[in-house]
Amino acid sequence: MELLFLGTGAGVPAKQRNVSSIALQLLQERSAVWLFDCGEATQHQILHTSIRPRRIEKIFITHLHGDHIYGLPGLLGSRSFQGGEEPLTVYGPPGIEQFIKVALEVSQTHLKYRLQVVEVNEGVIFEDDTFKVECAKLEHGVTSYGYRIVEKDLPGALQVERLKEAGVQPGPHYKQLKEGKTIFLEDGREINGAEFIGESKPGKIVTILGDTRMCENSTMLAENANVLVHEATFAEGDEKLAYDYYHSTAKQAAQVARQANVQQLILTHISARYQGEAVKQLAEGAMKEFKHTLVASDLVSFPIE
Amino acid sequence: MELLFLGTGAGVPAKQRNVSSIALQLLQERSAVWLFDCGEATQHQILHTSIRPRRIEKIFITHLHGDHIYGLPGLLGSRSFQGGEEPLTVYGPPGIEQFIKVALEVSQTHLKYRLQVVEVNEGVIFEDDTFKVECAKLEHGVTSYGYRIVEKDLPGALQVERLKEAGVQPGPHYKQLKEGKTIFLEDGREINGAEFIGESKPGKIVTILGDTRMCENSTMLAENANVLVHEATFAEGDEKLAYDYYHSTAKQAAQVARQANVQQLILTHISARYQGEAVKQLAEGAMKEFKHTLVASDLVSFPIE
Repeated sequence: MELLFLGTGAGVPAKQRNVSSIALQLLQERSAVWLFDCGEATQHQILHTSIRPRRIEKIFITHLHGDHIYGLPGLLGSRSFQGGEEPLTVYGPPGIEQFIKVALEVSQTHLKYRLQVVEVNEGVIFEDDTFKVECAKLEHGVTSYGYRIVEKDLPGALQVERLKEAGVQPGPHYKQLKEGKTIFLEDGREINGAEFIGESKPGKIVTILGDTRMCENSTMLAENANVLVHEATFAEGDEKLAYDYYHSTAKQAAQVARQANVQQLILTHISARYQGEAVKQLAEGAMKEFKHTLVASDLVSFPIE
Repeated sequence: MELLFLGTGAGVPAKQRNVSSIALQLLQERSAVWLFDCGEATQHQILHTSIRPRRIEKIFITHLHGDHIYGLPGLLGSRSFQGGEEPLTVYGPPGIEQFIKVALEVSQTHLKYRLQVVEVNEGVIFEDDTFKVECAKLEHGVTSYGYRIVEKDLPGALQVERLKEAGVQPGPHYKQLKEGKTIFLEDGREINGAEFIGESKPGKIVTILGDTRMCENSTMLAENANVLVHEATFAEGDEKLAYDYYHSTAKQAAQVARQANVQQLILTHISARYQGEAVKQLAEGAMKEFKHTLVASDLVSFPIE
């Protein structure tokens, strides 16, 4: 599992930072990539990565401001043009469906795959055997969601050495044992697989928030997360500006990270007013509050281990 | 007057060539820039030029395919965010208004300037003292326009030396003479300004065509143009492919240039299948038909003199 930042700027594109998009690479977990937001030229950024658009399985939109959605029509079209045939689902606030529908219709873009658009409200919006995704509303003037991505616990490994010691030799019945089932040996003994499975490995938790003021739902969504991705449109000291424009300072993001007891905080949505040394200062302001803080840059990835 | 190519690729963005957009720089003529098409990330390309978005006065859309329009909402929004307050007019085929309206509304983008969207048909779509723009339909499966931009003839200079020889000394009446009016001197003589004005300088003609098969309207729009910008999605030999997909080969573009008696042909909308040597061959194929042929590249400009 890896986070690859495609655009880490705020509002308008700049040479150093494109507008918002983050790829959560789940190649080992489900041979898939999930995108969070899709600002203009996200597909251009992808050209500089190893991401194949056909692998993008889900796109989660935090909110409908242009710097978070204007890259969607182009990416959806190119994914089809480049041979993507697997279904794709876009989740986002009400309005996202109309935006996509009109852009594709006006441009007569005919997708060769099944596109599903789900306008979400709060709660669990996706769940299968391996992942669960929840969302809740933040505070941004317009509807803005935070997403909590929870990987389900991974079952422990079959303890082969212990089985051998118990006289159970490898064979097709190992599969049943691994599933925790009970088998009967030829000598009549009963072997309960559940007793020969190691501890389960806890799944990862990744929380990716849309633009927001500091708010309670941020902490709730981020609780005990391995990684929290939080906006930091302003630096410490600009709390009033942040409040007035429905954004956060880096320090506020760090406070959320501390309250939520996360392992790692990654700051993004950095305004173009901060360059070079100013970005360092922005990070340092946050680190006073929460040590494990990093500032994202375009095309930089963070493995989640 | 200068053409600056912002995106010269076809269909989908590639590292070397972005999707379609061309800037016609009219800084001396009217302190303005006109754009022709606005594919995704046109505003990103502009970051690498001296173009200031507030200077963009008009945007002409040739047709509604995504690679020609998906950069519009972002550019319109950023122009406002960056302080653009002068009115802007977008011209394009029916449907362009709905696309822009929905994108701006859904994203709650409030422009600080007056945006006018004009859905055009054939004929003269704009005219003032210095320029006239006409358009006509091409052949591209969907409505696709070619634009003919005609600069009006520049009036000749006032022949000051000849006036002095006739005993007319410089003064406020020179302004009237320059306008071709008749004045009366103190000695009773009548001086007709029109007789003291040099030859007018012919205005430039620039023809920019949307995607199209080779067709008669292309030649009509390009007649005697200083510059013709024509698509060349395919190379010589692929005439059948070009016809089937409503596109042109480089050779066909050159045939149009020759028939229309233009001074310079610039090829654009080059498919990513042509790289390096293949682009040279594509150009050479066209030059056999029409010598004054160039292939555009992203961020390269051509003065029109």
